[in-house]
Amino acid sequence: MSATPSTTDFDVVAIGNALVDVISHEPFEQIATLGLDPGSMTLVSAATVDQVYARMGPATEVSGGSAANTAAGVAQFGGRAAFIGRVADDTFGRLYAHDLQSVGVQFASTPAKGATPTGRCLVLVTPDAQRTMCTYLGTGTELDASYVDDDLIGRSAVLYLEGYLWDQPAAMVAFRKAAAAAHTAGRKVALTLSDSFCVQRHRDAFVDLVTGAVDILFANESEITALYEVDDFDAALQHVRGHCEIAALTRSEKGSVIVAGDEVHVIDAHPTAVVDTTGAGDLYAAGFLYAYTHGHDLATCGSLASAAAAEVISHIGARPVADLRSIEASVLAARRA
Amino acid sequence: MSATPSTTDFDVVAIGNALVDVISHEPFEQIATLGLDPGSMTLVSAATVDQVYARMGPATEVSGGSAANTAAGVAQFGGRAAFIGRVADDTFGRLYAHDLQSVGVQFASTPAKGATPTGRCLVLVTPDAQRTMCTYLGTGTELDASYVDDDLIGRSAVLYLEGYLWDQPAAMVAFRKAAAAAHTAGRKVALTLSDSFCVQRHRDAFVDLVTGAVDILFANESEITALYEVDDFDAALQHVRGHCEIAALTRSEKGSVIVAGDEVHVIDAHPTAVVDTTGAGDLYAAGFLYAYTHGHDLATCGSLASAAAAEVISHIGARPVADLRSIEASVLAARRA
Repeated sequence: MSATPSTTDFDVVAIGNALVDVISHEPFEQIATLGLDPGSMTLVSAATVDQVYARMGPATEVSGGSAANTAAGVAQFGGRAAFIGRVADDTFGRLYAHDLQSVGVQFASTPAKGATPTGRCLVLVTPDAQRTMCTYLGTGTELDASYVDDDLIGRSAVLYLEGYLWDQPAAMVAFRKAAAAAHTAGRKVALTLSDSFCVQRHRDAFVDLVTGAVDILFANESEITALYEVDDFDAALQHVRGHCEIAALTRSEKGSVIVAGDEVHVIDAHPTAVVDTTGAGDLYAAGFLYAYTHGHDLATCGSLASAAAAEVISHIGARPVADLRSIEASVLAARRA
Repeated sequence: MSATPSTTDFDVVAIGNALVDVISHEPFEQIATLGLDPGSMTLVSAATVDQVYARMGPATEVSGGSAANTAAGVAQFGGRAAFIGRVADDTFGRLYAHDLQSVGVQFASTPAKGATPTGRCLVLVTPDAQRTMCTYLGTGTELDASYVDDDLIGRSAVLYLEGYLWDQPAAMVAFRKAAAAAHTAGRKVALTLSDSFCVQRHRDAFVDLVTGAVDILFANESEITALYEVDDFDAALQHVRGHCEIAALTRSEKGSVIVAGDEVHVIDAHPTAVVDTTGAGDLYAAGFLYAYTHGHDLATCGSLASAAAAEVISHIGARPVADLRSIEASVLAARRA
């Protein structure tokens, strides 16, 4: 069932929207001053993102985006990860590449020379730990098939794609080309459904993908029920069984369910105090794919996935702060006990 | 998969310890005056149960015991249920038979003429809704193979047995005889593991039963992990798959998981405010077996089971107070929607 890392240079190559997360701590009144709705995520223009950025306090920059967070998580576990995404040849683009490489992910795309700047997500954290976000997608959404490095994909055990790519026609073509390259090389294709609204926008295409092109599916409860237009989790579970080789369905505090042919695992959520759920799904996928590409059984993949998700929701931000290798060691020790 | 009620006179015949629940509301100080530990369940002698009973306030008597509660639940859904259990030919014994029959369960045992009185469970409810219990098992534990009515069992779609029976050697023989009679007649044998301490007392025998004699197993998380001596739910799930035709594993607020060969269902707990968890497992089994013997698929069996369990934990006492037939109607309507 597991992939064979010995014949590959990377465990996971991820493709997704490249976004620099720009995180600052702000007093409550600043949110109102900026005309933002507390706790919201708003898509904004280049001009607006620059205006808000100019008025933010001291900030921390992190190379973000869902698939990139997963690649970073794989690398933080000690796995070999690469990322394909489009940034501009500007300050934020260079920062993006540098930051991702600093956590051990190979940034496998050349910054673009075009006029559109690098995408950014401004994250304003108020004293109650609430995040108010302004996202400018920027050049990330201009990713096209020319970014798909068939050779790199062929040297990676798993190709990991985010559903958000489906929002842009050119990225959709890139998605298809990448999946074909992976399968031609005998590799696995993994997809995260990303978001229930994203699923609603592309439902038929996603059902088609899950049934045909995807080997490993990641989805949370609202995404998988949206995919099959059903009300309850069990009904969605019945639909997805047999549609792809492995489906890992996450359910927040209810844990996750992994189905793979006749195999079914019901995995508990890893106990933790929830501070900020950002990155939970991304790190679940990271833990799962790291374990999967290192020859672990599916129950262990699920346990490591849950532990990684628990780490990232126990603090602000989508990047783990604890040592994921010691988390791995304690999960494996508990499973052997 | 489902049994064929058209060829039977009963949907479920249950065998278990017959205990009259004697329920009273008491002030906090009464618990201390009686020398009881608030919230505890103590097994007591006939003399002690009489002493405590004499000092209790006005009480309500209900025919209880785990398997009897399940039989009553099946009847309250409109199913056809019978109960086999040993009571004495005394006031509480006659009350037991009368009360069970009043909710539509055929009480299929003749009260015993011996010296041991009918078993009772005194339930003292304090103003904080806590239950302090004194249980005298009485003649219920003297049930033996002579109580096993092969003809009645042959006319019932499902034989339902409680694990507590295994605590008495004579009841164990009765258990085996009943299971053999059910299988000879082509009926299904269902077992509830009853309690994790009960499982620890009889682990090897229960593993043997689950693997051989039991078609439908009910267990909660602590019981099924005790059965297989494992730490986590998923590990127990992997063990039980394939050991019996159907396993319905309950997980309190995490819902339940039903496995039956290749079929797996992950069912949510029915939302409710928990007042008193007594009877949750008994009513889960009632809803499940009622649906099962009425030709419903396993996901519907699980949904009806969860709804029945939610009803009984929303108030004090092990007997539903809402109309289970309207609960059934709303569950079926929701599943059709």
